[in-house]
Amino acid sequence: MNIKKVVVAGGGVLGSQIALQSSYCGFDVTIWLRSEGSIERAQPKLERFKNIYVQTLEAFKTDKSQYCRGLAKSPDISEEEIDELIENAKNGYESLTLTTSYEEAAEDADLVIEAIAEDPEQKIAFYQELAKYLPEKTIIVTNSSTLLPSMFAEYTGRPEKYLALHFANTIWANNTAEVMGHPGTNQKYYDEIVQFAEDINMVPLQLKKEQPGYILNSMLVPFLSAAEALYAMDVADPETIDKTWMLATGAPNGPFRILDVVGLVTAYNIVIMNPEVNNPDSIHAKIAAKLKEKIDKGETGINAGKGFYEY
Amino acid sequence: MNIKKVVVAGGGVLGSQIALQSSYCGFDVTIWLRSEGSIERAQPKLERFKNIYVQTLEAFKTDKSQYCRGLAKSPDISEEEIDELIENAKNGYESLTLTTSYEEAAEDADLVIEAIAEDPEQKIAFYQELAKYLPEKTIIVTNSSTLLPSMFAEYTGRPEKYLALHFANTIWANNTAEVMGHPGTNQKYYDEIVQFAEDINMVPLQLKKEQPGYILNSMLVPFLSAAEALYAMDVADPETIDKTWMLATGAPNGPFRILDVVGLVTAYNIVIMNPEVNNPDSIHAKIAAKLKEKIDKGETGINAGKGFYEY
Repeated sequence: MNIKKVVVAGGGVLGSQIALQSSYCGFDVTIWLRSEGSIERAQPKLERFKNIYVQTLEAFKTDKSQYCRGLAKSPDISEEEIDELIENAKNGYESLTLTTSYEEAAEDADLVIEAIAEDPEQKIAFYQELAKYLPEKTIIVTNSSTLLPSMFAEYTGRPEKYLALHFANTIWANNTAEVMGHPGTNQKYYDEIVQFAEDINMVPLQLKKEQPGYILNSMLVPFLSAAEALYAMDVADPETIDKTWMLATGAPNGPFRILDVVGLVTAYNIVIMNPEVNNPDSIHAKIAAKLKEKIDKGETGINAGKGFYEY
Repeated sequence: MNIKKVVVAGGGVLGSQIALQSSYCGFDVTIWLRSEGSIERAQPKLERFKNIYVQTLEAFKTDKSQYCRGLAKSPDISEEEIDELIENAKNGYESLTLTTSYEEAAEDADLVIEAIAEDPEQKIAFYQELAKYLPEKTIIVTNSSTLLPSMFAEYTGRPEKYLALHFANTIWANNTAEVMGHPGTNQKYYDEIVQFAEDINMVPLQLKKEQPGYILNSMLVPFLSAAEALYAMDVADPETIDKTWMLATGAPNGPFRILDVVGLVTAYNIVIMNPEVNNPDSIHAKIAAKLKEKIDKGETGINAGKGFYEY
């Protein structure tokens, strides 16, 4: 199959980035949004990301450290080629179609990338309504971070053409895309999505099985929890824990620097999902209490200017 | 207190490195060994490590990437200063005293660094015998990776002067030293050990409480276990898992590259310590089976030339 028309459902942080990245790479992109209000909120995000693409490419002309693999597969490109890419960013942005109509979005769609809220009811309602208008050929992928494709496959009307394609924030720089099917996904469509990920300058990371948390969060969550436990038990301070990890593994960041990027509210929400948190003597309860203390002070991470570190 | 005479008990890989590093940095070092056979086995190790110090320093003269913080606290040193350090390595090696006598080792010792086998009975017997000869002033530290100082404090005859100082392999390059007391350790001696660690070019990493696995292994073990689980459940292959971690966190190595360095036998021994391993349906049993398969083929890691990767 030849993917041409891509529909991105949802204009949040990730949805906007996925839409712009796909149109930057030459796809015909329509963004489906729930309401006129969602369209108004999506527009400034799209413009902001377009400006980041243009500015990053301009800066790359004189500073090779500005290279982002999502913007160009190789750093060895001429100034003329960079100018072409800047045109791609501008034209990609201009060519985006925003609509609230299922019918308009679905018409002749080759691929739908669902990036709406992490709410199973909303996702099911979206898939069921969309199924009424979609042609048979359309592949649907979900960008869900926390929910599994097998939870939704039957509602799409095409379980064999449904799987997950999971992006990371700042898609132009962190250009990984985890590709994960459910037991009913047909390998043919899985392979097409791997190809599509490459076509939009992503590094496809292939999962052979459905796995909550995909690959990255399956490792990141226990790693960060172990670091949080050392801190909550007062074994060592965050700076010492980070220094230990960085010196021993050569990593550029330790767990508390990563937690500042992830955000302490997200870290807190992950901890309180554990039923053990209700036992006040549990390590989970102690971690939750320590994180809550910082959140209550507004020290929620890098976006707040302060988390475990100051920014 | 002013530490002058340092006794290293044990001439294994770590014991040899700790002894040489301490004499390289100007301490008067005696190595206590169990038998004449142990002395014969320790000597070539000491010579080999001395040669590595000399060769690394020579190479550093023309190639700044050879810098190791264990050999010089700053990379900004002149060729004359490097020549002095080479002399320190040679003189440090020559000045080492090797003995099987508790009495000779204990005489006027300021610090004993215990780096004998990870066997509680052997450690207890060593501490009890040593206590008969040691002056009151002597501080004792253990380099144990897996046992806690509180298990042995009472056998040393000086619990307040007993704590852990935990080194990493290739001490001249990986120069972290985790400092950890037990509840009865006196802060004064803890602080002296922090100073001693700095004096032998280590980066002291201070633990405020006793913690099995110290800081590093408390994070590394759950992190590696999570990666092993993805592999054992056939969610993704080791290369994909490593690539995911490296791309997402900027780390130079992923978990399977780290496992090749740690060694698959060590990883296997950690997994089988979990009682869950006896349930064949458990993830621990599946990890153990996958590791055993590779160990049986001789693919035990970087030292064998092959583990998850080829070397």
